Amino acid sequence: MDDCIFCKIIKGEIPCHKVYEDDQVLAFLDISPVSKGHTLVIPKEHTDNLMTMSAEQINQVFQVAQKVAQKLDEALKPDGFNLGMNNKPAAGQVVFHAHVHVMPRSKDDGLELWHQHYNYQENEVEELVKKLINQA
Amino acid sequence: MDDCIFCKIIKGEIPCHKVYEDDQVLAFLDISPVSKGHTLVIPKEHTDNLMTMSAEQINQVFQVAQKVAQKLDEALKPDGFNLGMNNKPAAGQVVFHAHVHVMPRSKDDGLELWHQHYNYQENEVEELVKKLINQA
Repeated sequence: MDDCIFCKIIKGEIPCHKVYEDDQVLAFLDISPVSKGHTLVIPKEHTDNLMTMSAEQINQVFQVAQKVAQKLDEALKPDGFNLGMNNKPAAGQVVFHAHVHVMPRSKDDGLELWHQHYNYQENEVEELVKKLINQA
Repeated sequence: MDDCIFCKIIKGEIPCHKVYEDDQVLAFLDISPVSKGHTLVIPKEHTDNLMTMSAEQINQVFQVAQKVAQKLDEALKPDGFNLGMNNKPAAGQVVFHAHVHVMPRSKDDGLELWHQHYNYQENEVEELVKKLINQA
């Protein structure tokens, strides 16, 4: 897409710190990293988010996410990794070209997962499960 | 694994609210949800985390994560989705059977992504990229 910043990175019109590339997938350092080595993995063919990715793109992107985690593991010896993928603005997506975050973690980095807790009302779980299971 | 709580869920020894199942993958509601519909997607064959998953498990689990997001989208009409995967204790992993979180989001749910910023020192990016690119 012409106005997509990640498509411009793929075409080489905007520079990036590339850490992996093949015919379908590109991985590069996030310019606003939450931790050292924070990397984005993207499909080269434009697609908006998880919901619009083809099965092939899902396979390719998440296999490269594993490969990037293994590379970062060897290079940085972190204590762990988070994968993250934000889909649509309400989920924090800012660039609307599907991308997976690979974030190396260390024990004392201060990053906190969500502890907020949703409380289901009576019968709400059962009604939701019924809806989900009954879909095609 | 005998002492793995998710393996016990797969064997039916511990109950869960199942939302999807096939021969390789199970998806069920998180018992400690951050949002309504928060679902976990797991491979049926035990594996510890992203790093130990086979290519087939990656394909299967993330394709089901997409399917679950689509089902939740239809059932709940959320404003977006986060995918998350915590690998090793430093990343917040508590159950050591690989699992992907699918978390429906609404605009005003108050969940915040990490804003912490890692500042690379001079030459640190270049040295890291060199290490990553030069690996097999």
